[in-house]
Amino acid sequence: MFAGIELGGTKTVCAVGTCSTDLVARTEFPTGDPVATLREVAAFFRQHTFERVGVAAFGPVDLRASSKTYGHILKTPKEAWRGFDLAGSLRTALCTEIRIDTDVGCAALGEMTWGAARGLQTFLYVTIGTGIGGGAYVNGHPLHGLLHPEMGHLIIPRDPGDEFPGSCPSHVDCLEGLAAGHSMEKRWGAPPRTLPPDHAAWALETRYLATAIVNWLLTLSPECIILGGGIMERISFEALRARVLELLNDYCDAPPLVRPALGRDSGVLGAIALAAQSPL
Amino acid sequence: MFAGIELGGTKTVCAVGTCSTDLVARTEFPTGDPVATLREVAAFFRQHTFERVGVAAFGPVDLRASSKTYGHILKTPKEAWRGFDLAGSLRTALCTEIRIDTDVGCAALGEMTWGAARGLQTFLYVTIGTGIGGGAYVNGHPLHGLLHPEMGHLIIPRDPGDEFPGSCPSHVDCLEGLAAGHSMEKRWGAPPRTLPPDHAAWALETRYLATAIVNWLLTLSPECIILGGGIMERISFEALRARVLELLNDYCDAPPLVRPALGRDSGVLGAIALAAQSPL
Repeated sequence: MFAGIELGGTKTVCAVGTCSTDLVARTEFPTGDPVATLREVAAFFRQHTFERVGVAAFGPVDLRASSKTYGHILKTPKEAWRGFDLAGSLRTALCTEIRIDTDVGCAALGEMTWGAARGLQTFLYVTIGTGIGGGAYVNGHPLHGLLHPEMGHLIIPRDPGDEFPGSCPSHVDCLEGLAAGHSMEKRWGAPPRTLPPDHAAWALETRYLATAIVNWLLTLSPECIILGGGIMERISFEALRARVLELLNDYCDAPPLVRPALGRDSGVLGAIALAAQSPL
Repeated sequence: MFAGIELGGTKTVCAVGTCSTDLVARTEFPTGDPVATLREVAAFFRQHTFERVGVAAFGPVDLRASSKTYGHILKTPKEAWRGFDLAGSLRTALCTEIRIDTDVGCAALGEMTWGAARGLQTFLYVTIGTGIGGGAYVNGHPLHGLLHPEMGHLIIPRDPGDEFPGSCPSHVDCLEGLAAGHSMEKRWGAPPRTLPPDHAAWALETRYLATAIVNWLLTLSPECIILGGGIMERISFEALRARVLELLNDYCDAPPLVRPALGRDSGVLGAIALAAQSPL
């Protein structure tokens, strides 16, 4: 039995189980400050026994095994979490070994283990929700590199006539600033979930996402791109794929663009898969 | 003793040796059609003995070991080479085992084995010359994925006021279309090597390359980016790094940007390194 925690920017999900179809318990609650959140996490897991814990954390998070700040949250707009020793605090609170990756890195692993990327070696998982983030596996192993990818902040061309300044606090009109959920809300003055299917927002969103997808696929050459997150639930994959092919103009093949097979649980299930891997 | 071939779009380099500082022979000649080129390659290698051959090929080239067209050149503007069975023809001509990767994939391996990426696991080699291409190693292994990256064709924003339409036959104003050597020549009406150091061309080129570098580093999180090719010999790395940091705006760290330690021989030396790897 293994435990998984998905620590998201707005909510935290905890689960215990052996695989995607065998969860013995699952809970979720809003992410608060570190002390309150860890208290809730510990209270849930106190009721269960398990071998190890996997953590899917919002970033940026230090994943370098040799680093003195391994498992710490790095500079983030969420001030209470900045510099927080997430792995160390969970190890103490839960008295067990902790393994950690980004939320999107875990979601990728979950999809590789039980979902849409089974049998693949090199693929990309992207979430388009309040923010935009991506995690990749290359040759069957997680892509971390210097820290971990921050694919949401690509520099892409603005759509002709788009006058919205952009909403990214760091880059103004990067991909997140133009196309994340928080950007859509600012641009259209309403939460994306309230915009009707024929609203111009969705066609513009499709064009921005297609541009980002082309840049990701030219750089990473993935065998598949899994697109999750709340915004993607409103996007036509057919229209998105058509726009990607139009931009590629037959220069190279596009990989399949698919929805996560594990739905909204890719992250927490990936955390369980991370915990379940053979000892490192 | 191992043999390396770098089959470039304009020239072919052949060498025999054991490592970067021990080449017993090296030659180069213009790349012609397949028959003429293979005749020259075979004539050179007939004078030498070696165990295996590594090939650094212009792309797109099929690198999937299980594919029926493994080692074939795929659709390329060079019509005589389209569909050519490069690995098979070399195997027959040289009567030996052939290993193949892209020119930039081999250059990355050369730099990892003997050059600027020694000791690194995840890094990027980019060439900016007549065209633009990139090869990456992730966790110490080559990134191929669906085929191999085609990083030269990123979609990036135009510089404000840039009226040049772009020169990419497939995408018009992608990165290659705006910033490759062939694009610079069309834009300024003169070969880049003839443009003086204070020409506006170099500042514009620096801005376009910095944008591409930011997109690559956000997607791949490399520990280092090695920038080779003729155009890079004219670019100030200091100015390039300054612009990359300006674009990142302290959002995340930038990896070192460095010149290839093996100069113009990263590709052919990487081909030798590929040949020298333990049997697969």
